[in-house]
Amino acid sequence: MNILLTGGQILTMAGEEAEVLSTDLGIVNDRIAFIGSPPSDFRADKTVDASDTLLMPGLINAHTHVSMSLLRSYADDLPFWDWLFGRIMPVEEKIESDDAYYGAQLSILEMIRSGTTTFADMYFFMDRVAQAVEESGIRANLSRGVTFMQGDKDLDKLTEAEEFYNNWNGKADGRIRVDIAPHAPYTCPPTYLKKCSELALKLNCNIHIHLSESRKEVEDSLSEHGQSPIAHVDGLGLFESRTYGAHCVHVSDKDIALMAAKGVTAVNNPTSNLKLANGFAPVKKLLDAGVNVALGTDGPGCNNNTNMFEEINLAGLINKGITEDPTVIPAYKALQMATVNGARALGLEDETGTLETGKKADLILIDLNKAHFIPRYNLVSSMVYAAQGSDVKTVICNGRILMEDYRVLTLDEQTILKNAAASASRMTAEEENS
Amino acid sequence: MNILLTGGQILTMAGEEAEVLSTDLGIVNDRIAFIGSPPSDFRADKTVDASDTLLMPGLINAHTHVSMSLLRSYADDLPFWDWLFGRIMPVEEKIESDDAYYGAQLSILEMIRSGTTTFADMYFFMDRVAQAVEESGIRANLSRGVTFMQGDKDLDKLTEAEEFYNNWNGKADGRIRVDIAPHAPYTCPPTYLKKCSELALKLNCNIHIHLSESRKEVEDSLSEHGQSPIAHVDGLGLFESRTYGAHCVHVSDKDIALMAAKGVTAVNNPTSNLKLANGFAPVKKLLDAGVNVALGTDGPGCNNNTNMFEEINLAGLINKGITEDPTVIPAYKALQMATVNGARALGLEDETGTLETGKKADLILIDLNKAHFIPRYNLVSSMVYAAQGSDVKTVICNGRILMEDYRVLTLDEQTILKNAAASASRMTAEEENS
Repeated sequence: MNILLTGGQILTMAGEEAEVLSTDLGIVNDRIAFIGSPPSDFRADKTVDASDTLLMPGLINAHTHVSMSLLRSYADDLPFWDWLFGRIMPVEEKIESDDAYYGAQLSILEMIRSGTTTFADMYFFMDRVAQAVEESGIRANLSRGVTFMQGDKDLDKLTEAEEFYNNWNGKADGRIRVDIAPHAPYTCPPTYLKKCSELALKLNCNIHIHLSESRKEVEDSLSEHGQSPIAHVDGLGLFESRTYGAHCVHVSDKDIALMAAKGVTAVNNPTSNLKLANGFAPVKKLLDAGVNVALGTDGPGCNNNTNMFEEINLAGLINKGITEDPTVIPAYKALQMATVNGARALGLEDETGTLETGKKADLILIDLNKAHFIPRYNLVSSMVYAAQGSDVKTVICNGRILMEDYRVLTLDEQTILKNAAASASRMTAEEENS
Repeated sequence: MNILLTGGQILTMAGEEAEVLSTDLGIVNDRIAFIGSPPSDFRADKTVDASDTLLMPGLINAHTHVSMSLLRSYADDLPFWDWLFGRIMPVEEKIESDDAYYGAQLSILEMIRSGTTTFADMYFFMDRVAQAVEESGIRANLSRGVTFMQGDKDLDKLTEAEEFYNNWNGKADGRIRVDIAPHAPYTCPPTYLKKCSELALKLNCNIHIHLSESRKEVEDSLSEHGQSPIAHVDGLGLFESRTYGAHCVHVSDKDIALMAAKGVTAVNNPTSNLKLANGFAPVKKLLDAGVNVALGTDGPGCNNNTNMFEEINLAGLINKGITEDPTVIPAYKALQMATVNGARALGLEDETGTLETGKKADLILIDLNKAHFIPRYNLVSSMVYAAQGSDVKTVICNGRILMEDYRVLTLDEQTILKNAAASASRMTAEEENS
C-alpha cells in the first residue's frame, strides 16, 4: 500500500544533531519512499493527516520478556534474589503455552499504544510469542532464553532454540529475527555458554544475554571464575557474534573497554535497575568509551510496564543526577538510545531506527495537541521530558498501520485484556495451591 | 449537588496500610457524605458509573510555579545557575499579567488531566493565577514569591504579598489559601527573611520557600552565615509558622533533626533535582526521622510538565536505586507523599488528601481498562509503577466535576493552548530582540 503522511513535522533521528523537517513522508509497501514533496508519479492509496503531530521513528525496546506481563504487580518492593527465585520463578513454572501467547499479546498491545515498533525478547514458549508478533504487525528479535541449571538435561533447550531459529527467522514478512539467548553467566555454566557461542556463530545470529546486572553477580563471578561476567563470557567466545547485553550496571573500566572493542551493546534498563535496587549503569562512561547504549523496559514482571517513554525520560534524567552534570545525556541522546542505537544493537541498522528513504516504514505520530506540548520551543526536549506513552496517536510498522488515531487496528483489545487476566488468575491460584 | 459514584474500587489513603474498598461513595455539595451503601435518605442528582475504575484522593502537587509553563522546553540540559540566571530570569522579565494567567491556565489544564486537585504555587502576578484557579475549580495554596535582591526597594513585594492574602485567602469557596513565600535564603537577606517570618505569624499562614536545593547554595550559606540554609532560616524565625520547603536535597543529619522538631515539610521534587543535576534528596532518612515528605513537580520551566504520576513513579524508583534497598519507599508510601503528606504540608489535612467521610470531595477516577493495568494483583503497585497521568478519567474537586470521562468541563482547552502559545512566542521574541 502507498501511504502519504502530510502536514506533520518529522524528527528523522538520522544525524548526530536533531533535525526536524516540516514536509511530507511517503511509504511504498513496507519502506519509506521519500521524505519531502511527493514525486509526480506517486499515487497514495491512503493519506494520513499528520498536522499537529511529530513523526519519529518507532521506538525500539531492546530488552524485555513480554509474556511476563502476566506477573505485573505480582511481586514488588522486594530484593532482587527474593523477587527472582522466591516469587517469579515459582509462578513461571505454571505458565503454559496459551498463557505465554496471551501475555505476549498484552505487552504488544501496550507497546503499540506507547510507540514501540520493535522489541527484543528472551523467554520460553517463543513460538507463541512469535505468533503474537506475526498477528500484531510489530517487529521483534526473539530468542529462546536458555538456562543450564540442570546441566546436560537442559541441552534440549538449545535444540529448541535452534529449531525456533529454523522455524521463525525471517518470517512474518521479515519482521521476525531470531537470536540466541543464554540467560546469564550465573545460570549458564561455561561449557554451555560455549555451546551457545558456537550455535550463534553457526546460525550467524546475535546473542541476547543478561550481563552484570547485580553486585552479587559480579562478586560471585570474580570468586568463581576469577574475572568479571563480561570478561568471563568473552573468554567463552560469546562476543564473536554481535551481542547485546541487558543491564551492564556493575561494569568496570576494563569491562567497558572490552565491550567497546568487541562492539557489544549495553542495553540500559533504568526502571528495572532502580526498582530491583541494582543501581545505576554508567551510561555516560559507556557512551564516552564508544559503547553502543540502547534502552529497554525489561520484563513487565519487574518494571511494571513496557512504556519506552518512561525509560527515555529516566535515561535523560537519572544520568544528570548521578553525575551532577546537567549536560550529560541531553535529550537527543536519550532519544537515540531508544531508536538508532536500538537498531544497531539488534543488527537492524539498515532497516529501522531512523526515518530515511529506503528504510522500513516504522514510525509513530505523536499528538502535539496537548497542554504539555505547549509551547513548542524544542520538540526533542518535549519528547524526553514532557511526553507520555499515551501521546502516541498513530503507529506504522513495516508500512502497515497498527494504530490509527488511538484505535489499535491489528489486535482485539478487550479480548486480550480478558484472556490475559484469566491466565494470570489461573497461574497464581495454581502457585498458591501448590 | 449530590453525586453518587457507584461500582468502583476505592483506595482511601486513610490508613498506614493500603485499603481498597469495593463500594459506593456519595458526595453532598463539597464533601464526602459516605463511603459504603447510600443511606436511605440520599438522593443523587448525578450518578457516575465508576466501574472498572479506581477512586483515589486527588493528587497534591506541593511545589510548582504554574505560569512557568510558558518556559517549558525553553532551556534544557543546562547547569542550574546558567539555567536560572542566564536563561529563565531574563525571559521572566517579559512576563506580563495576561501571560501569567494563560500560563497558569495551561498548567491547571494539564494538572486536571493528570489527576492533581490541589497545588502549591509561588510566583508573581498571583492575582491572575488566583483567577485561573477560581475559574478552573481546582484547589490551591498560592503565594507571591518575594526576592529582595534590591533590598528595601523590594519591600513593596511584601506589601503585595499581604494584599494578595487579604484579597484572596479563603476565596473561591475556600479553595484558595494564601501563604507567604520568601523565594530562598540566597535571594532574601536575613533582615527580609525575618520580615517574612513576622508577616506569616501575623497572618497565621504557612511559609513556602526553596531550601537547600543545590550544593552551591549550602556552601555559600556556610561561608556567609556559618550555618546551613535550614539552620539559618530557623534562626530568623521562619519555622515558627508551618513551613514547607521545596527540594531539601543537600540536608545534613542536623538539618533533618531540626526539620523534624519544627514540623517542617520537605517537598521532594525528583524530576527537577535530577534534571538540573542538583542530586537526590535523602527521602528515606527524612521519613525515618519523622519529617513529613510531600511531592511536587516544581515549575514546568525545568520539569517540563506538571504530571504528578511521574513524580510518584520517580519517588518509588529512585530511592531504591540510591540506597540499593528495594524495600525503601514502597508503593504505598510514594502515594502517601502525593496525597496525605501533601495535605499535611499545606495545612489541609482536615480537608483533603484522603477519602473519608466529612472531608472535601477531592477525588480522581483512574481508568483501569488498559493493558498496563492487567493483571490486577496490586492496584497500589500499579498506580506507582505502571500508571500514566493520562489514565485519569474523571476528576472531582470540592464536589464539582472538573473532568468527566476525559472531557475537561471547566476550561476551554483549545483556547488555552492557543493563548499560551501566543504568550510564549511574544515573550521569547522580546527577549531575543532585547
